[in-house]
Amino acid sequence: MENPTLRSEILAIVNADAVTFVGHHHPDDLHDESLHAAHVEPFAVVRPSNTQQVSEIAKLASRHGLPLTPRGSGTGLSGAATPVPGGIVISFSRMNQLLEVDVDDHVAVVQPGITLLELNEELAASGLRYPVYPGELSGSLGGNVNTNAGGMRAVRHGVTRQHVLGLELVLIDGTVVRTGARVMKSSSGYDLTQLIVGSEGTLALVTEITLRLSPQLAHAVTILIPFRSVENVTRVVPSIVASGLEPSILEYLDVLTMSAITSEASLELGVAKDVAAEAAAYLIVMLETRSSEQLEFDVAALAELVEKAEALDVYVLAPGAAIRLIEARERAFWVAKASGANEIIDIVVPRSSVPSFLSEAGEIAERHGAFITGCGHVGDGNVHLSVFLSDEEKRRVFLHELFSLGVDLGGLISGEHGIGRDKQAPFLALTDPTLLTIQRKIKAVFDPEQLLNPYRLLDDRPLP
Amino acid sequence: MENPTLRSEILAIVNADAVTFVGHHHPDDLHDESLHAAHVEPFAVVRPSNTQQVSEIAKLASRHGLPLTPRGSGTGLSGAATPVPGGIVISFSRMNQLLEVDVDDHVAVVQPGITLLELNEELAASGLRYPVYPGELSGSLGGNVNTNAGGMRAVRHGVTRQHVLGLELVLIDGTVVRTGARVMKSSSGYDLTQLIVGSEGTLALVTEITLRLSPQLAHAVTILIPFRSVENVTRVVPSIVASGLEPSILEYLDVLTMSAITSEASLELGVAKDVAAEAAAYLIVMLETRSSEQLEFDVAALAELVEKAEALDVYVLAPGAAIRLIEARERAFWVAKASGANEIIDIVVPRSSVPSFLSEAGEIAERHGAFITGCGHVGDGNVHLSVFLSDEEKRRVFLHELFSLGVDLGGLISGEHGIGRDKQAPFLALTDPTLLTIQRKIKAVFDPEQLLNPYRLLDDRPLP
Repeated sequence: MENPTLRSEILAIVNADAVTFVGHHHPDDLHDESLHAAHVEPFAVVRPSNTQQVSEIAKLASRHGLPLTPRGSGTGLSGAATPVPGGIVISFSRMNQLLEVDVDDHVAVVQPGITLLELNEELAASGLRYPVYPGELSGSLGGNVNTNAGGMRAVRHGVTRQHVLGLELVLIDGTVVRTGARVMKSSSGYDLTQLIVGSEGTLALVTEITLRLSPQLAHAVTILIPFRSVENVTRVVPSIVASGLEPSILEYLDVLTMSAITSEASLELGVAKDVAAEAAAYLIVMLETRSSEQLEFDVAALAELVEKAEALDVYVLAPGAAIRLIEARERAFWVAKASGANEIIDIVVPRSSVPSFLSEAGEIAERHGAFITGCGHVGDGNVHLSVFLSDEEKRRVFLHELFSLGVDLGGLISGEHGIGRDKQAPFLALTDPTLLTIQRKIKAVFDPEQLLNPYRLLDDRPLP
Repeated sequence: MENPTLRSEILAIVNADAVTFVGHHHPDDLHDESLHAAHVEPFAVVRPSNTQQVSEIAKLASRHGLPLTPRGSGTGLSGAATPVPGGIVISFSRMNQLLEVDVDDHVAVVQPGITLLELNEELAASGLRYPVYPGELSGSLGGNVNTNAGGMRAVRHGVTRQHVLGLELVLIDGTVVRTGARVMKSSSGYDLTQLIVGSEGTLALVTEITLRLSPQLAHAVTILIPFRSVENVTRVVPSIVASGLEPSILEYLDVLTMSAITSEASLELGVAKDVAAEAAAYLIVMLETRSSEQLEFDVAALAELVEKAEALDVYVLAPGAAIRLIEARERAFWVAKASGANEIIDIVVPRSSVPSFLSEAGEIAERHGAFITGCGHVGDGNVHLSVFLSDEEKRRVFLHELFSLGVDLGGLISGEHGIGRDKQAPFLALTDPTLLTIQRKIKAVFDPEQLLNPYRLLDDRPLP
């Protein structure tokens, strides 16, 4: 895999400290957080500092027919950012600036490498925030755009897609273009911005993102509500959504996930012993308002709603406990990983189908000798399950049945993690072939030689 | 233009009462509401009753290489639905059913011919509503999807794009496909639903739409606020948006538009004579809340905000007057048309650039001997101007300068009316050619023979 010409061509684009070559890579660059991501050595990992360098790298990849794998923070869960042997990884870790905060227009312009944590820390003083909350705060905005990241606040604020107003893109031939504008309305041609969001780096390289921000809300409270059954939780959800209370967070946790994350985080939430003993599932609701008076009204209205739905109790959490519970919830994935889960799925079904999905999923799991445990963004039908079934072939069959159930209920393979490599089998098997053909033709419009993040999403060739 | 074979092939697809042929068309079918839409006679206007018939018509058009022009209610303002001589107009007036209201998932499934008025009337009892409010309530949802209609409530609720969860489409070869799902999150391939929204019927025929609904809010108030200058109005807007009050409507009217629409609607709003004499511009704000207590808080907070910004007064309108004012505002287009306006534009610029845009637009108009008057969705930067300048060539030059100003300020040609035929010149002249090339290639993916709504948007060939 030695190629001295290529090496010197790369070194003509970026400084020596901005590239590593095969045999000398940092191990963190060789995988994402997929449970199945074996470390793969690319020819080079390049860290451009600006769009011009990204453009030059794209031209070089085109010239040599080399695979180009874009990479943010590497926190993806589907193997979308694992390298290709012999290819180039383009890491955006040095393009991580907040370029502008436009307070009047509620807009931030960022580079793709900035993390959610950095962005919101830098925005703190402005009175604005980026309201999408995909949990893993070390994730990069570029990665968020490419997977259309969702998270806990989607029930109120929507997902990444609704917050991307415009993009700067580098095409595979090195051309730099800008899509969209700093506006909320457009009827001026096909929406290329929206086409790129969620495309997993397969269409173009995102080098700048114009984001819509929201005002920070001064008053917030987090409420924990234990229920006797998962069905009770999922049944109360539509009435909360219908109430107009607009919760920012509406999460459910089954009792196993709850006890795992609270013990991992040493959380004491004040749930009475007898209630805890009876509880089979928990709902977490966050309310955020502009005034403290409104918050009081809203909490009372919520309490009334859930009591009608046979909640075992209603706990308004102390601020510290609330933050730690939300953070612990976000670590559910790591808890599952540490417990030896064999697969993580994030199927999304219509909100009202969550109860059927969970109960049928349990039956399917039992039939296949699989163990599943979960939590989920129940406000938006995005169910996260950890699957424990070590035999690979048995797991494949089980997962196909599970995904088929979700699709039969009107759902989709992934709500927010993306397809990457890990979900290609169900995605390609369960999507209308005509839709796949259209998507492959669109891919060919942008990247006829299949150099941009190949071997993902629509392209299930085995890695070379 | 007589073609007996074609005639009988069409009559084999739909009943005789569902088609008119050249020479016998209803004049309403031959134009839209563009100021420049001359009546054009197609070979046939067909009114299919179901998706199967739409598919058969698409196959027939493909077989004969005939232009196919989709048509909703014909309320478009850009000439996107005017027929092509010798072509087939496919009118969705008979596919106008609300197929399903899913109260738990907050979803409605509709056919494209249903109007906004019909939809919201049918939803009234459900506690839900379709919150997008593009004003012309006789507009069809299919038309709304194809132009990505916006309207007055976009400042809070977003535009059509954010409310379309899925589509049933007929491709030009007759294939029927479904995109999206009844879910708010997806990271499962390229978002074809979003690609179709705003594509002006040039990519596929929309035969069914899955819409996201919102809870109806019980309490609402409309507030009219006169200001000494347009600049004062546009300067206060960012602070209202930043406040978190989330107004459903945030509109400005210059004093000419205000007096035209109020006299046309014989509206008496209770504005004191001395205030009216001093007022140069008005802001209309609608607040909607879940509880009456919250509404009181919010009105007080708004009053405080605008008083700081030198509002001349604050009028909380009586419910009847409020509804009539909003309706009258929606008729601003008809007032402009009746006054002999030569062009209507709906340019969109970043919210904070509206003051610069308006003042520079005034200077440009003066230089070109044009008269402009306007109103606009100032909460989202969507400026509606009526242009009075009868000389066609002078108008062309003036408009190019006006659109260039908007684009230089970071804006786009159309916020909600679409490009159609009327805005092709500035759209094609002021859009990055690389972006146009990509869009043309995407068009070719869906419709290689250019049969779907040709002569619009990217295709500026003269009509045959």
